[in-house]
Amino acid sequence: MARTIDRDDLERLAIGAGILGTGGGGNPYLGKLQARQLLEQGKTIEVIPANEVPDDALVTTVGSIGAPVVSNERPKQGEEFLVSLRALETHLGRKITHVTCAEIGGSNSMSPMIVAAQANLPVVDGDGMGRAFPELQMDTFMIYGIHPTPAVISDPRGHVAIFDKLDDPTTLERYARTVTVQMGGSAGAAGPAMSGREMKRVLIRDTITLAIEIGDAVLQARAAHRDPVDAVLAKSGGQRLFHGKIVDVERRLVGGFARGVLAVEGMGPQAGQTLTIDFQNENLIARTGEGAVLAIVPDLICIVDAETAEPITTELLRYGLRIEVLGIPAPEALKSEAAMRYVGPEAFGYKGFTFTPLPGYFANTPGAFDLDAAMQNLSESLS
Amino acid sequence: MARTIDRDDLERLAIGAGILGTGGGGNPYLGKLQARQLLEQGKTIEVIPANEVPDDALVTTVGSIGAPVVSNERPKQGEEFLVSLRALETHLGRKITHVTCAEIGGSNSMSPMIVAAQANLPVVDGDGMGRAFPELQMDTFMIYGIHPTPAVISDPRGHVAIFDKLDDPTTLERYARTVTVQMGGSAGAAGPAMSGREMKRVLIRDTITLAIEIGDAVLQARAAHRDPVDAVLAKSGGQRLFHGKIVDVERRLVGGFARGVLAVEGMGPQAGQTLTIDFQNENLIARTGEGAVLAIVPDLICIVDAETAEPITTELLRYGLRIEVLGIPAPEALKSEAAMRYVGPEAFGYKGFTFTPLPGYFANTPGAFDLDAAMQNLSESLS
Repeated sequence: MARTIDRDDLERLAIGAGILGTGGGGNPYLGKLQARQLLEQGKTIEVIPANEVPDDALVTTVGSIGAPVVSNERPKQGEEFLVSLRALETHLGRKITHVTCAEIGGSNSMSPMIVAAQANLPVVDGDGMGRAFPELQMDTFMIYGIHPTPAVISDPRGHVAIFDKLDDPTTLERYARTVTVQMGGSAGAAGPAMSGREMKRVLIRDTITLAIEIGDAVLQARAAHRDPVDAVLAKSGGQRLFHGKIVDVERRLVGGFARGVLAVEGMGPQAGQTLTIDFQNENLIARTGEGAVLAIVPDLICIVDAETAEPITTELLRYGLRIEVLGIPAPEALKSEAAMRYVGPEAFGYKGFTFTPLPGYFANTPGAFDLDAAMQNLSESLS
Repeated sequence: MARTIDRDDLERLAIGAGILGTGGGGNPYLGKLQARQLLEQGKTIEVIPANEVPDDALVTTVGSIGAPVVSNERPKQGEEFLVSLRALETHLGRKITHVTCAEIGGSNSMSPMIVAAQANLPVVDGDGMGRAFPELQMDTFMIYGIHPTPAVISDPRGHVAIFDKLDDPTTLERYARTVTVQMGGSAGAAGPAMSGREMKRVLIRDTITLAIEIGDAVLQARAAHRDPVDAVLAKSGGQRLFHGKIVDVERRLVGGFARGVLAVEGMGPQAGQTLTIDFQNENLIARTGEGAVLAIVPDLICIVDAETAEPITTELLRYGLRIEVLGIPAPEALKSEAAMRYVGPEAFGYKGFTFTPLPGYFANTPGAFDLDAAMQNLSESLS
C-alpha cells in the first residue's frame, strides 16, 4: 500500500534507519532536516510497494558515497542527488520513473526521500542491503546482476563524474571512491539504472516501512515508559548480545573509511565480561574478551543507547556511553552463496571466519526474498 | 593547404614531435605504428589548416593521459581515443566534425592521426602547446578560456569516465589523473569540445606541419651527411645550449609523473663544464654547475642524440649517451601574462625564478599567434 511520508514518519525513519545502519551509513539527521524542509515547502514524498511498479519502469537509487565523518562535517549543498539523477537521465537519454533506496541503514535512507521530493518521483519501498555496508558492490543490485554502470557522482559545486561500461562494481567502487576523495570526501551518487522487472527481482522489499515501524515502536515505548530496546527486538527479529559501557574507541580514517575497534566493559548480566567490536564504517564482528564470536557480518550488529534505544553511529562512539549491543539476523538476500562473496566475513578480510548466522529472521519474516528470481536475474546478466 | 598524411609523413612527424616533446609527452613510436597500420588498412588521414574550418564546426582533441613510462610498457588497446570520442558525442548529443592536437610534443602528436583514421575526420593543423606539458590545464585551450568539460577518459577494457560541469581545468586534471591511476596509469582522453570559431582563436597553428618539416629536415640532413642538429635549429628557431655526456639520471614516479634530475658532463666546447636538467615528464630547467639558468620553462629544452638528432625522451635517458641540449623559444601563446600563470616557472614550483625568454621565435615565425583574439576568447568565457 502506498504511504505518504509526513514529518513524523521522517522522525521514525531516522531512528529505524539509524539502528539498521549498524553503526555506519552515516547519521540520518542532516538528511531528515532536508527532507522535512522539502515537506514544509509543499513537496510530497510517496512510498509505494515494489509490486506496484511496472516492469518497464526505469528505476535508480541515489545515495551518498564517502566517509560518514566527512558527510557530517561538510553538509551537502542539497542538490547533489538531483544533479546526479539528471546527469544519469541525460546520459541514458531516458527519464527515471522511480527511485529506490540503495541502503536503508543510516543517512542513505533519507537520500531517496530528498530526491523524490525534488524530482516528484515515487519511492519504491525497499533497498539493496537491509542495513548499511561500506562499499558500492555490497548490495543486492550488484550481487544479483544489475549492471553497475552508468553511475554518476556529483559534489556540492555541481561537478559531475559519470562512469560507464565498467566491468564490475568493484571497479566502479575504486573509480568513484577515488574521485570522491578528490571531491572533498563526500559526494551524491545516482545509479545503477534498472528496469522495474529487474528491480522487483533483486530488491529487499519493504525495508523503508520496516525502518519507520522500528522507529515508531521505539517512540511509542519511550512515551509509554516501556523498554524501547525490547520494542526494537520485537520488530526487527533481533536479540540482545551485550550490555555495557564503552571503555575504549580506537579509530582512524583510512582510504575514505572510518575504521577502528571499540571496547565495551560488561554491566548487569555481562558484568566482568568484555566485548570488542571491529568496524569499517559499519560494525563487522562482535567478540568476547575470550575471542568467542557473538555476531559477524552480514548479520547486523547494532549499538543503541541502553536507556532510549537511540542508535549510536560509529562517529558518535565515545568513552563512557552505556550501550546495548543488538544482533539482528541479516536479510536472506545477504546469506546466499552468491552474496557471501561480497558481504561475508572473508570479503571484509576475516579469513578463516565462517558466517554462523544468528537465529531467527530479519524483520521476523521468513521467505521474504525470492532467491530464485534473484539468481535468475544474475544468470541472465551473465549470459 | 590540406595535406594527406602518408607513411613517410608519420616517420617525419615522429621525429619532429619527439624533439618538440622536450623529453616528455611520451614516445611517438607506438602511436606511429598504429597510425601506419591504419593507413595500410586503407584509411586516410587528412590535415587541414585552421582557416578552412567553419565557425560552427565542433572540434575536440584526443590524447593520452598518464605517465609515459606506463604508456610504453602497457600499450593502448587501440580504440581508447575512439571510445572516448564517441562517449563525448553521446554526452553532447552532437557529432564531432574535426579533431585537433592537444599536444604536438611526443606521443600525443599521433593521437589525432589515429582517431582521424578510425572515425574518418579531418585533423586541424595545430595544437594547444607547441611542445609537451605534463598537465591538462597547460594548453592554450584552457589558458584562453575554452571550458574544460565535458571531458572523457577511457581505458583498454572500454571503461569510461565522463567529467562534466567542473569549475576549472585544474579540477579536471585532479579528477582525471586519479581515475587514470585507477585505470592502470594510462588512459585515452577526449575533450574539450569547442566550436570552430573558438578553436581558431586559441590554437597554436600549423604545428603538425612544423613537426613534419623538422623530421623531414633531420632525415634529409642524415641522408646528405650534413649535421641533423643544425637542420633542427634552422626549422625550429632554436639554438645549441650544451654538448656533453649523460653522467647521472635520478628519477622517481610520483603521483603518475616521471620526475627527476639529469646531469651532463660537457664535451667539446663545454668540456670541463656541467649541466643539470630538472624534469617532470618534460625538461623544465637547464642550469650550469654554477647555477646559471640556460633555459627555463615554457621555453623548450630538447635533448637529442648528438650524432643523429634523434630525440631522447625522459624514459630513454641513460648513462653515457652523447647528447646535444637544444633551446627553442616557446610559442608566443605561452609567453603572455595569462599563460605564465599556468606554464611559467612558478607553475612548476620554481619560486623566484622569472622567465627569461630565449632569443628568437618559435619556428622562426614572429607574430604567428593572435593574442588579441585569444584574450577576447578568455574574456568572453569569463563573462
